[in-house]
Amino acid sequence: MYRTHTCGELNINNVNKSVTLCGWIQRIRDKGGMIWIDLRDRYGITQLMFEEGSSSDTLIKQVRELGREFVIQVRGFVIEREAKNSNILTGDIEIRVDTITILNRSETPPFTIEENTDGGDELRMRYRYLDLRREIVRTNLELRHRMAAKTRIFLDSEGFIETETPCLIKSTPEGARDFVVPSRMHTGEFYALPQSPQTFKQLLMVGGFDKYYQIVRCFRDEDLRADRQPEFTQIDCEMSFVEQDDVLNTFEELAKHLFIEILDIDIKNDFPRIAWSEAMEYYGTDKPDIRFEMKITNLTSLVKGKGFKVFDNAEYIGGICASGCAGYSRKQIDNLTAFVQKPQIGAKGLIYIKFFKTDQKTEDNRDYKSSIDKFFPDNELEMITSAAGAEPGDLVLILAGEKKQTLYALSELRLEMGTILGLRDNNKFAPLWVTDFPLLEWDEETKRYYAMHHPFTSPKAEDTDKLETAPGEVRANAYDLVINGVEIGGGSIRIYDNQLQKTMFKCLGFSEEEAQSQFGFLMDAFKYGAPPHGGIAFGFDRWCALFGGSESIRDFIAFPKNNAGRDTMIDSPSPISGEQLKELNLKIEKKK
Amino acid sequence: MYRTHTCGELNINNVNKSVTLCGWIQRIRDKGGMIWIDLRDRYGITQLMFEEGSSSDTLIKQVRELGREFVIQVRGFVIEREAKNSNILTGDIEIRVDTITILNRSETPPFTIEENTDGGDELRMRYRYLDLRREIVRTNLELRHRMAAKTRIFLDSEGFIETETPCLIKSTPEGARDFVVPSRMHTGEFYALPQSPQTFKQLLMVGGFDKYYQIVRCFRDEDLRADRQPEFTQIDCEMSFVEQDDVLNTFEELAKHLFIEILDIDIKNDFPRIAWSEAMEYYGTDKPDIRFEMKITNLTSLVKGKGFKVFDNAEYIGGICASGCAGYSRKQIDNLTAFVQKPQIGAKGLIYIKFFKTDQKTEDNRDYKSSIDKFFPDNELEMITSAAGAEPGDLVLILAGEKKQTLYALSELRLEMGTILGLRDNNKFAPLWVTDFPLLEWDEETKRYYAMHHPFTSPKAEDTDKLETAPGEVRANAYDLVINGVEIGGGSIRIYDNQLQKTMFKCLGFSEEEAQSQFGFLMDAFKYGAPPHGGIAFGFDRWCALFGGSESIRDFIAFPKNNAGRDTMIDSPSPISGEQLKELNLKIEKKK
Repeated sequence: MYRTHTCGELNINNVNKSVTLCGWIQRIRDKGGMIWIDLRDRYGITQLMFEEGSSSDTLIKQVRELGREFVIQVRGFVIEREAKNSNILTGDIEIRVDTITILNRSETPPFTIEENTDGGDELRMRYRYLDLRREIVRTNLELRHRMAAKTRIFLDSEGFIETETPCLIKSTPEGARDFVVPSRMHTGEFYALPQSPQTFKQLLMVGGFDKYYQIVRCFRDEDLRADRQPEFTQIDCEMSFVEQDDVLNTFEELAKHLFIEILDIDIKNDFPRIAWSEAMEYYGTDKPDIRFEMKITNLTSLVKGKGFKVFDNAEYIGGICASGCAGYSRKQIDNLTAFVQKPQIGAKGLIYIKFFKTDQKTEDNRDYKSSIDKFFPDNELEMITSAAGAEPGDLVLILAGEKKQTLYALSELRLEMGTILGLRDNNKFAPLWVTDFPLLEWDEETKRYYAMHHPFTSPKAEDTDKLETAPGEVRANAYDLVINGVEIGGGSIRIYDNQLQKTMFKCLGFSEEEAQSQFGFLMDAFKYGAPPHGGIAFGFDRWCALFGGSESIRDFIAFPKNNAGRDTMIDSPSPISGEQLKELNLKIEKKK
Repeated sequence: MYRTHTCGELNINNVNKSVTLCGWIQRIRDKGGMIWIDLRDRYGITQLMFEEGSSSDTLIKQVRELGREFVIQVRGFVIEREAKNSNILTGDIEIRVDTITILNRSETPPFTIEENTDGGDELRMRYRYLDLRREIVRTNLELRHRMAAKTRIFLDSEGFIETETPCLIKSTPEGARDFVVPSRMHTGEFYALPQSPQTFKQLLMVGGFDKYYQIVRCFRDEDLRADRQPEFTQIDCEMSFVEQDDVLNTFEELAKHLFIEILDIDIKNDFPRIAWSEAMEYYGTDKPDIRFEMKITNLTSLVKGKGFKVFDNAEYIGGICASGCAGYSRKQIDNLTAFVQKPQIGAKGLIYIKFFKTDQKTEDNRDYKSSIDKFFPDNELEMITSAAGAEPGDLVLILAGEKKQTLYALSELRLEMGTILGLRDNNKFAPLWVTDFPLLEWDEETKRYYAMHHPFTSPKAEDTDKLETAPGEVRANAYDLVINGVEIGGGSIRIYDNQLQKTMFKCLGFSEEEAQSQFGFLMDAFKYGAPPHGGIAFGFDRWCALFGGSESIRDFIAFPKNNAGRDTMIDSPSPISGEQLKELNLKIEKKK
């Protein structure tokens, strides 16, 4: 062993002890007569001390040849520090060093190994092994490790069996795009990497495994966004002989377990459960951030037909009430207008009503000031603000247009106002279940229904007869866990009846042959006694990021890929040899 | 919830309780007046009881329409059994059923769901979800789950951080063949699936992670054998600031932890550690089964030059002593001869010396009978048997030929004799470390050296100067854990010096450009303060199989592939659509 102790464990009780430490040089302070080195490893920082006269000349000479990030081994004695540092665990002591061995030299790193590094994203990705030395990055990955460990402990204690499912599976065009793996032994054939172990976990239920989980790598060949990675990790779970409430209760316990174990937050109350339709109506989104109220009010019937064209021509008019914001300046309102007019939000304009307190009134002594006061007299503005739940001093913000789009814009405006008002504290957590999702989504482009969740999600029993007559109205036994406006996980009670699964594929526009060739194995399995079952999958990277107080999952992945799906450190993807291509019987076609 | 209890938990204390159970119908016994059903789930079997007269006619009628593997839900009362069954946990009770709900029907399964099923390998692979219902298969996968859980508990407690490394990495021609994944976004470029996370775990050490592990999927596109799978699982570990003994001690503790936790076997002694050269000399293999002694004796100098051509022309002559086998019949000797002459073993013939006890002597009153007694008088046979450690009553078996090949054949003969003599008890475990492997292996075909372990393994310090002069003689800081003749894991202390790594690539015939283009990121990383480090990887599937008493890893994988790398259940690999190929800019070339 190269060391007797780590750089994080020595304290006042170890004074006079002879020790050997190893680590990286974080910092050298040469004050002439005295030299101090901060020696760093995963466990902490220990101060090394050298004194001219007292330390040998050879040693002092050696020290002056060291540089940042050199890896050294030192032998010496623990002594009490004169100037103690209560910020670090080893702050009461330092090491009076007798000998130094340089284990490895270091060139000057391309960026500083500090919390606030001078390295940009790209540079840090390229030298990720150096970025990993930064405490903040290491702490994120330690959090991830603890999350996984605590998840396993909980699920193990609940009788779940962790079962590995294959990575080399079969491509199915439903859902996102698959990564494929050419088979050398079977010319012209391909494996696919799993987007999730969905069908396999269902087969495990058919196989009687009763309770399954896996923390598992999944793959999606999507055009990437900031918070997407081509490979990501799920906590994937499935249970037999359960109904929706059983699944929700079980995994609400898992979430509470992680809240207490990881964040020391004890959530005693049940998580709220709201139907998808309600979430859409009151928050404009299926993943509401309920750390703050500010619900959307549907004003359509109240304001339509009053001669204001913008409203009269709109399918939907809705508003939110920003508490205490009646005093907003023109500039503040303009900023909000610019926000909702951003192309990715797409509202045409923003209407406001300021509802003043008695001592604030307008110059002409009115209670209201609004961008629509030409069309709406005060008594009507009063009705609107009252509907929106506004009190004197509040600001009501109104958007109008096509319903779906306007609700989306309102939801974004709501989040923006929440942020502005400081209602979205990263240390506060508000989980909820969204349930009763629609089973199917109509796609205008391809003129067909798609499964909102996936094709194995069961319709609600009371809606099943609408499957062939009004598929768009059928609700699913599907649910999402949302925390702080982030979808952390989702699942459903599955179809386990062969005939119903066939009907479902028919609704999705599969011919019988297509359904059989892609999912025949699952429908076959359902012929041999499939139990009722359901489950859930959590986005593990995202959950870690949420608990770590970050928006980017990339900070919680040891070796992430960039937005072009590239690992710039190892330079992948990259060309392969002609010989490899030949063995695979593949030829690359030039892109036109 | 569909049930109040599982089929494995009710006992005499629950008598008179009203319960609801769910499960599969294992067996129906209809004795006219009485009908019994064995209801099965993952947790056990509970007997259901129906009585004509007492149960309603409708219920009896319903029961008579049930079949094997139907999934049912029953409500009823727990009653004490008249004929108790002490073989099962629920054997003291049965359920007097009031109502049955059929949750799902089943067609007649293609094979019986019993320990000794009538289904062949192929059929069971195709219907793996039914095979998984068999207790033996489920038990294997439960063992696997426990092995993983206990491994994590141990490594977590030792301060290892489980860190996920990427699956989409970069192809390197060194080692086995990679599976590759075409990139859609980067035409003509490919990711590769990892054969192991080797370089990433080394980068984690450069990143200061100090102690890393991962239970991780790995991929090798090899021509498959019975105990190989294209995807398999490793327990992958790495540590910084360690020497070989530190790694061996740490993971010997892991092994002991699993022995006690999984098999309840408390191994108090240190595992034996023997050098590779010794293992080859005494066992003819680098993975000796030391459940039994029967070491190989090198007889070359003793028996050469006595005028027996077979010996005189041989590079090497070696023998083993089969204790108590002097009485072997001609047929038994013939069988052993046939065994060593099998093409995969390849010996030309087998020479034996029977060393009789005093009361057994030959017809002409000699102590020895041998296939070579024409060439070797009794006093010489005595010298040979004495060298081989034989006592009266023993049989010495001798092979001669080219050294490497003969040692291999002797090792196989030794195992065969061990099996015949019942010395290879599957409930007995004999672990050992094999150390000091050669660093390089010469390949006659390509006329170059290959890394025996991998190109990152460090040479022994005292052998480093032979790297450029006599590469074949250089020993490595490499080690394997072997249990019962099965290689369970292997690892090494790594190179962490940029220059030494370059020299190593040179020895392996890499040009500087090749080394840089394939492993440049690692050699670059070594420039910024790489710590001394080393690690190990265990074949998790194989370890599970060994502890489960099986030779086949396939029995311990939920969804294995067959010998052609095919998943016959989901029918994969399979063709993908023309559109997918087009998006990937790939064309399939017809095989000539």
